[in-house]
Amino acid sequence: MSSQDTPGARLAAFAAGLRFESIPAPVLRRTEDLFLDWVGSALAGKSARAVQAIEAYASSMGPADGSAEVLMTRRMTSPHFAAMVNAAASHVVEQDDVHNGSVFHPAAVVFPPALAVAQAIGASGREFLAAAVAGYEVGIRVGEFLGRSHYRIFHTTATAGTLAAAAATGRLLRLDAAQMLHAFGSAGTQAAGLWEFLRDAADSKQLHCAHAASAGLASAYLAQAGFTGARQILEGAQGLAAGMSSDADPARLTAGLGSRWATAETSFKYHASCRHTHPSADALLLLMREHRLKPDDIAAITAQVHQGAIDVLGRVVVPGTVHQAKFSMGTVLALVAEHGYAGLDEFDRHFLAPRIAVLRDKVTMQLDTEVDTAYPQRWIGKVSVRTQDGRTMQARVDEPKGDPGNTLSRPELEDKARRLAAYGGAATPAEMDGLIARTWGVADAPRMGRWLPA
Amino acid sequence: MSSQDTPGARLAAFAAGLRFESIPAPVLRRTEDLFLDWVGSALAGKSARAVQAIEAYASSMGPADGSAEVLMTRRMTSPHFAAMVNAAASHVVEQDDVHNGSVFHPAAVVFPPALAVAQAIGASGREFLAAAVAGYEVGIRVGEFLGRSHYRIFHTTATAGTLAAAAATGRLLRLDAAQMLHAFGSAGTQAAGLWEFLRDAADSKQLHCAHAASAGLASAYLAQAGFTGARQILEGAQGLAAGMSSDADPARLTAGLGSRWATAETSFKYHASCRHTHPSADALLLLMREHRLKPDDIAAITAQVHQGAIDVLGRVVVPGTVHQAKFSMGTVLALVAEHGYAGLDEFDRHFLAPRIAVLRDKVTMQLDTEVDTAYPQRWIGKVSVRTQDGRTMQARVDEPKGDPGNTLSRPELEDKARRLAAYGGAATPAEMDGLIARTWGVADAPRMGRWLPA
Repeated sequence: MSSQDTPGARLAAFAAGLRFESIPAPVLRRTEDLFLDWVGSALAGKSARAVQAIEAYASSMGPADGSAEVLMTRRMTSPHFAAMVNAAASHVVEQDDVHNGSVFHPAAVVFPPALAVAQAIGASGREFLAAAVAGYEVGIRVGEFLGRSHYRIFHTTATAGTLAAAAATGRLLRLDAAQMLHAFGSAGTQAAGLWEFLRDAADSKQLHCAHAASAGLASAYLAQAGFTGARQILEGAQGLAAGMSSDADPARLTAGLGSRWATAETSFKYHASCRHTHPSADALLLLMREHRLKPDDIAAITAQVHQGAIDVLGRVVVPGTVHQAKFSMGTVLALVAEHGYAGLDEFDRHFLAPRIAVLRDKVTMQLDTEVDTAYPQRWIGKVSVRTQDGRTMQARVDEPKGDPGNTLSRPELEDKARRLAAYGGAATPAEMDGLIARTWGVADAPRMGRWLPA
Repeated sequence: MSSQDTPGARLAAFAAGLRFESIPAPVLRRTEDLFLDWVGSALAGKSARAVQAIEAYASSMGPADGSAEVLMTRRMTSPHFAAMVNAAASHVVEQDDVHNGSVFHPAAVVFPPALAVAQAIGASGREFLAAAVAGYEVGIRVGEFLGRSHYRIFHTTATAGTLAAAAATGRLLRLDAAQMLHAFGSAGTQAAGLWEFLRDAADSKQLHCAHAASAGLASAYLAQAGFTGARQILEGAQGLAAGMSSDADPARLTAGLGSRWATAETSFKYHASCRHTHPSADALLLLMREHRLKPDDIAAITAQVHQGAIDVLGRVVVPGTVHQAKFSMGTVLALVAEHGYAGLDEFDRHFLAPRIAVLRDKVTMQLDTEVDTAYPQRWIGKVSVRTQDGRTMQARVDEPKGDPGNTLSRPELEDKARRLAAYGGAATPAEMDGLIARTWGVADAPRMGRWLPA
């Protein structure tokens, strides 16, 4: 296999050659949906201490003006720092999108560099959308390629995200296929992000997104300037998979390029918690509705889950922070049982409430073979409840709310974006009206300017 | 074991608490030696295309003025970008220092952030030296901890280097032990760098240093602002070693803290090639001197080496670039046989010369049990030569030139720094006179200002 004909080289050539005209209209519309959903998340992160620390760093180390917009402060700076801060803000409220098969959150690492670079070079809305699709298609395939063994230790959004950010940036900079492969090489050799922070509820997730977005963006700019990278950074003998995966499958890098649009497989988050809790939460909601249960009726809840959920969520028993609560299956199911929804407000106001704590301690997770086998292609939710009066009942959902077959409508997406912006105190309702209208019309924008008024 | 009593926490506490007064004078003098040696390397990188690409990126994305100095251009910018560019420039000519036991190049990732931050905050020369020692002690121990399995895939200077940069920066920012541990968490979760680029002679090594220096620096500034990281990023179940090593030994993180000064174990490079070639080069020089051989007398050379040398050097047979030539055992031994020295000029002018190519093709590497067992604590050089008239002879060196027991004198270091600066066209001889004098007096500097005239 020559270096020109490797899976990584074919993926790079696809990203470099992707044209707006060749992307099906439903995929473009879904990309607009994903863009609005991302803006909401990036605005919601405004008040988070960890995000503010990264913005303060960007302010002190980056230029005080520039051509790219930090959404939450509306400050202009260089694309490197705008991408860094917007990415840091994107993931903190855990409401951004997720691609199930790759267990990868594309928006948080694709839109920040895509918007920053599009603004900086004055790209059209069409170029912006094509670049975003390039980022999604690349990042999702790299995540799938790295596999489940990778995800056990590494935060795929951080690692695959660095490649995704490079692809989106490289597409906007009109890199050719060879340059794009060099950008992948530089991105892959900077790919990093470990799950260890979950144990301490540390701030690393925000840093992971910031790092992926800015390092990936840098990789593409460097490639444009002739800087070279490893041509087989993904699949080579000393590449990313060799170092960080034991079940990598290079065929997944190129599967269905140009015919399968992984972008449109991306799910929106409905609950404000780690995605691993959503199938169980939806199944519990269904069960309580079908059996007309009240929270006090419940003696015990068993969430039947895949191994990845146990790996990621298992360590959090009694959450110490709101963020940790979003990784506590017990807390999420308790909020859902009590309030019918596990949104940002529910977490902030109730995650340590006595009634929630009592319900939380009734929840256990159990590995389920059917759920585990279907994962990560399908995220099946199964719960079993024992009632105070001794009955046992089950429920299942085959697609949690927000998944492609059970997606959010544009009015639902608008409502979610408005709630997120209000949560962050980052835009007025009138400003959101304008932002939403601009988003639905992005494909006709001759030039990507500021996304919020100065 | 509580989270306050982990090896990583003890290492962080050591770095945070290190005082100038507690560092033995010979270690401080050696640190000054290492500093001068690093400045030379950073100046020598000025003319390298890959370094210029990173400097161009820093110029376009960073502020156009600031308090930290880009040595090769004498431009002032923010510490983030000064550290990034100086680090990128440090390693490109392969003349910077190396610590044998950790197979780690400390100067390239410690001095760039230490100088940039010291300049930015106006630290004294003593504070600067203490910070540099903190960076060396941490980086070397992290490299030793990650072990040989790590080095097979990962560039330890890039990965351990991110922690080293955080330690040096954190010490200058006067982080307390808890903040330093958070800085380690943020640095470790950004640690990255794969050897895959060697196959293509790509530019990644410069990016690795740039990334380690800037990401480590950012991690310490973020910790100062309250940003938290994983407390067991090094040794935890989803930490750096769990993801990137199979033979990590946590005891090595804390071995001899405060009594063993790993900084002073660091070797200077004499030849301008990958350090893995140096023991064989010195042994060949000795053999040719002892037996009064001329290059034309040689029929075959066998370099008896450790496995790491075969892993890193084995893939380069016929080098396509000067950089790749520095990883070609055949080319290095041929230059040494022909010119008595494998310096920057020898590589640039002769690496593809017909006489060099003929000698190069007479060199083979062979795994040697004694050499491999001693490595990485000791880098023994053993060569066997067969002559055209049928004789076979051996030679060995127990410490290559530049190692602590066979170190370079201050006049030798000054000469090397002058040659490196001249090679880069980055400073005049008179400027180097001033720089050298300032370096030997750094411990008395009340404030770290510019290191070269504007």
